[in-house]
Amino acid sequence: MSQGRMVQIEQDILGKNNEYASHNRSYFQEKGIFTLNLVSSPGSGKTTLLTRSIEDLKARHRVSVIEGDQQTANDAERIRETGVKALQINTGKGCHLDAHMVGHAVESLNPEEKSLLFIENVGNLVCPAAFDLGEAHKVAILSVTEGEDKPLKYPDMFHAADLIILNKTDLLPYLDFDVEKCIEYAKRVNPDIEVLQLSARSGEGMQAWYQWIESRMSA
Amino acid sequence: MSQGRMVQIEQDILGKNNEYASHNRSYFQEKGIFTLNLVSSPGSGKTTLLTRSIEDLKARHRVSVIEGDQQTANDAERIRETGVKALQINTGKGCHLDAHMVGHAVESLNPEEKSLLFIENVGNLVCPAAFDLGEAHKVAILSVTEGEDKPLKYPDMFHAADLIILNKTDLLPYLDFDVEKCIEYAKRVNPDIEVLQLSARSGEGMQAWYQWIESRMSA
Repeated sequence: MSQGRMVQIEQDILGKNNEYASHNRSYFQEKGIFTLNLVSSPGSGKTTLLTRSIEDLKARHRVSVIEGDQQTANDAERIRETGVKALQINTGKGCHLDAHMVGHAVESLNPEEKSLLFIENVGNLVCPAAFDLGEAHKVAILSVTEGEDKPLKYPDMFHAADLIILNKTDLLPYLDFDVEKCIEYAKRVNPDIEVLQLSARSGEGMQAWYQWIESRMSA
Repeated sequence: MSQGRMVQIEQDILGKNNEYASHNRSYFQEKGIFTLNLVSSPGSGKTTLLTRSIEDLKARHRVSVIEGDQQTANDAERIRETGVKALQINTGKGCHLDAHMVGHAVESLNPEEKSLLFIENVGNLVCPAAFDLGEAHKVAILSVTEGEDKPLKYPDMFHAADLIILNKTDLLPYLDFDVEKCIEYAKRVNPDIEVLQLSARSGEGMQAWYQWIESRMSA
């Protein structure tokens, strides 16, 4: 296949996705649904972050969740145990969610008006970067076990995100991770990116994350 | 774009890749180059595993390395500090190495006859699964910080691999990772998969990995 034909196909796919994303975004704005697209490597702790956030936020906000994974409905089940609505999308061979899948999921899930919708993308630092789902913000979660060089190696993702959460900070004493260097690398790729440090397991730093969400929900 | 057209494009790409992979494989066999394709999430510790392995193996084997990343030549530089030949491939927007890229890299790198060639793929548990590079074995590295459910969530990768390395076992005391459950999940996806547990940082378990390599090199 020629390079030219491949580029054309890529543009067709992204163009189509952007149309669906724009439709999703209008719907979310109309209904007051504040949507965050959580992106990361596999194993960064997204689902633990989500379950803890939901436990802490559900008393004051309506929350629902769309889960993306190649296989299994384990994550949606973990989320449902918190008592909120969750829908699992299995992408099969696919390496990311797209806006069309999310549009259908929203129809089934039917999130309440003036609510908070989390989308947990497939664990992958490459492919989800290019696919707008109609979210208000992409949030990149980076576990401190992964090494501080990740923003330089996967620049598209850190360029596309508005916030980095450095997760698993409870493990910092046992690692050689350089927090300052990681933040410097992230800002080199995206000067406007915000950074929060927290441990979803210990709970340290979670309040700042909730403030970040709530200040933007009311904006 | 229709689903049928997408499937056709995917088949064209994979068919073309398999031709290049088959060509690479013949070349490796002819020259006695034992090639391992290391696949994992970002941050599983592949490069640390490689640098330590090279330090320990270079006295008795000729070694060379092909590094894949979206951006940066950092990993190839880390490898070259060990004194062996390394070539960096930057995939840009791409989420995996393919056999065509590897064929060109082999031409430039020119690995010695009867040598060991490591290919460190782009950090991604989805896309590299489908792309044969002509290697003898895919080796999946899973950091114990990532959670024991990964083989179920990313079954294609664990199905394609012949060996799992559970890395960063020095961190097990600080985690809730269930080693037995992880192995059970991996064998559910791929009953023939072998499993090694090690810490590339502490060095624990590395000898079994060298034995695994050397028993197959001489086969």
